[in-house]
Amino acid sequence: MKLHDRCQKVTGMIRVIRDAGIYPYFRPISRSWGTEVECAGKRLVMIGSNDYLGLSHDARVKEASAQAIYRMGTGPGGSRFLSGNMVLHQTLEERLAAFVGKKRAVLHVTGFSTNLGALGCLLTPSDYVLCDRENHASIFAGLGGTKRMGTFAHNDAPSAARKIASEMGKPDFDGQVLLITEGIFSMSGDVAVMDELAELKKQYPDMLLYLDDAHGLGVLGANGRGTAEHFGVTEQTDFIMGTFSKAFASIGGFVASDHTDVLDYIQHQSRTQIFSAALPAACTTAALTCIDILEAEPERVERLRANTRRMRQGYKDIGLRFSESIAPIIPITIGSDEKAFMFAQELFERGIFALPAIYPAVPRGQALIRTACMSTHEDRQMDFVLEVMDEMARKYRIRIQDQDGDQPEGEGAQASSTIPGARSSQSLL
Amino acid sequence: MKLHDRCQKVTGMIRVIRDAGIYPYFRPISRSWGTEVECAGKRLVMIGSNDYLGLSHDARVKEASAQAIYRMGTGPGGSRFLSGNMVLHQTLEERLAAFVGKKRAVLHVTGFSTNLGALGCLLTPSDYVLCDRENHASIFAGLGGTKRMGTFAHNDAPSAARKIASEMGKPDFDGQVLLITEGIFSMSGDVAVMDELAELKKQYPDMLLYLDDAHGLGVLGANGRGTAEHFGVTEQTDFIMGTFSKAFASIGGFVASDHTDVLDYIQHQSRTQIFSAALPAACTTAALTCIDILEAEPERVERLRANTRRMRQGYKDIGLRFSESIAPIIPITIGSDEKAFMFAQELFERGIFALPAIYPAVPRGQALIRTACMSTHEDRQMDFVLEVMDEMARKYRIRIQDQDGDQPEGEGAQASSTIPGARSSQSLL
Repeated sequence: MKLHDRCQKVTGMIRVIRDAGIYPYFRPISRSWGTEVECAGKRLVMIGSNDYLGLSHDARVKEASAQAIYRMGTGPGGSRFLSGNMVLHQTLEERLAAFVGKKRAVLHVTGFSTNLGALGCLLTPSDYVLCDRENHASIFAGLGGTKRMGTFAHNDAPSAARKIASEMGKPDFDGQVLLITEGIFSMSGDVAVMDELAELKKQYPDMLLYLDDAHGLGVLGANGRGTAEHFGVTEQTDFIMGTFSKAFASIGGFVASDHTDVLDYIQHQSRTQIFSAALPAACTTAALTCIDILEAEPERVERLRANTRRMRQGYKDIGLRFSESIAPIIPITIGSDEKAFMFAQELFERGIFALPAIYPAVPRGQALIRTACMSTHEDRQMDFVLEVMDEMARKYRIRIQDQDGDQPEGEGAQASSTIPGARSSQSLL
Repeated sequence: MKLHDRCQKVTGMIRVIRDAGIYPYFRPISRSWGTEVECAGKRLVMIGSNDYLGLSHDARVKEASAQAIYRMGTGPGGSRFLSGNMVLHQTLEERLAAFVGKKRAVLHVTGFSTNLGALGCLLTPSDYVLCDRENHASIFAGLGGTKRMGTFAHNDAPSAARKIASEMGKPDFDGQVLLITEGIFSMSGDVAVMDELAELKKQYPDMLLYLDDAHGLGVLGANGRGTAEHFGVTEQTDFIMGTFSKAFASIGGFVASDHTDVLDYIQHQSRTQIFSAALPAACTTAALTCIDILEAEPERVERLRANTRRMRQGYKDIGLRFSESIAPIIPITIGSDEKAFMFAQELFERGIFALPAIYPAVPRGQALIRTACMSTHEDRQMDFVLEVMDEMARKYRIRIQDQDGDQPEGEGAQASSTIPGARSSQSLL
């Protein structure tokens, strides 16, 4: 099939959704105040952002970031390897390492490129890598060339244990096992069973544990130090990876570890480190300032937790369907893809910004609206969201008590999970 | 071999170079004024930056970028697909498309992720992709899963033609041919033979031509519109890819085309688009402001060309060895890796920031110092560099007239090119 024919299969579907007036993606934001945004002339409450602590609009973060531009320029001028390395980068690496409780950290220009670059050079063909099947796309991208890879059932440590035992039992196995999980899963809001995964290291001391804590940093643990700290398993977690595009009000990523030789190796071997421009000073400084604030103001993280409890209770009172977690990510099950698109469109018209995830990112017939709490959400904003959700839940009959409401629909609706890696290795359309 | 043993092979080599006091990479810059930087307490003339037009320090670019932070926040809060899309992104896409002479453009968060994401979804197993063997790492990364891939001799259109004819002649071939080249090659400064490559489309009208113009944008063509414009082959070039981390004073990348359906497809299928955070407002605005300036001030590009001519003539007068080109990138051949490290170290001590590239990025025994001109270099800075280079060229005996000076050394020194993809698919150490 020629390129244009292939493209038209996708673009044709997009056109149908657009023509129906329910295309929800790539909505252009013209102005942002963090918890509220302006979009197509409307002011909306933002309940779908990853800026969990609202620090992208903190006056100190903005000011420090802007000042960095005046001091260092807008662009980095090169890769860190060559002409783009800054003292700022090294300072941020030191602060990050201390923050998550590791000896050292290595920065990359985005979270995606951190996983891509670090994982891309960690493994040899004889190693075995084991992923939670709902791990992020960037993890699977980093494992592209890996010969021995397996997935375990989502958040299921016994499933992981069986896979490891089976692989290590093979007569030709003489490599290492690398187990990779997210801390908080980006779509479901599930918190990884880090305690159980860390426990596996007792049985397999050679196993390396890699935690992608993109959504856990700034959210879980003391002062938002992340999922490993929350479970008290920082020591057992060999690599803690994180990004700044969530709670850290920027873009960029890092991997931290006590294996300083491995980090030195990554710094010199990661292709996205050597062949990408460095993180600009403005972005680096934003993340640095976030660490200052997190260390000084634990109440920000506490406030996020309080808001999360409040929204979860409010959703529960309405009768919405969502899974239990302590994460600020709360996806609400709607039903069919079309219904989720219509739901998102009406939310938008009523002044709320939250977007749907559809198959294959979620099981067929279990399309959802991903909502996310922020530390800076005000009571009036949360009340407004809950009020609208209550009305719409009745209208769309998505409440648990709507006995005749839509149950999971269509083929494969009973599947307890998505297609392995679908959330990540394919697109959302 | 276990991970630590593997790492120690690399880190051991790094330690040797560090202990010798000649490790040149990841030099931390504490302050930048564009053409000069502060590093380890010294003020140096920067002659190794990709900020070719010096716009990272233009007062208008800085001011607009800083203001964008106050208006939109420091972080994007999400992917463009979901909650991070801005009117700013769309405006920049429209301006970029018009600037390079295409109907539409799609942004990504870095140049690396543009190639990775766009190329990663363009090809099917039946397509044949043909790369200049010195193409950038991000191109090879985007082609990771490609079954039918070939390389042609660097900048050699007849070599490309032979490869295409051979592949299309195979009885099982029923896909499309995608030919990929850089506009200006990042290490050598070679300008692609775009006229000859575009000519191949007469013979193979179905062939798609993809130009990575990271280093050509802002540098070649009227108002810096790039390599395709320079050769008058914009129409024949199906995809023009570029980044903002060179002349556009930021980070980020885009791909532009008249195949708007393919771009719509890329926008929805590219994994780095869907699964990466959006480009922050500060970075987006910096690139936008650069386009304003380029369109209004052609003299900036002219000044870069004048500085390039001046430096090339100066190097020639000294007797330095470098290849002919019109690009601002001028790599100077030094000899062995060790000699290049020592040369770079002495340059640094004498107040000049320029870094070496060694095997496998270049053929063995032909290690070089990559210098790059900027539009904003002042005469006194260029004079200073030429004066130091003159003295050091004599001392290190690297001049053409130093008959007993080092010729290309070691094994494989006669090779006219690098190991295929070495410049890009492997690290520089």
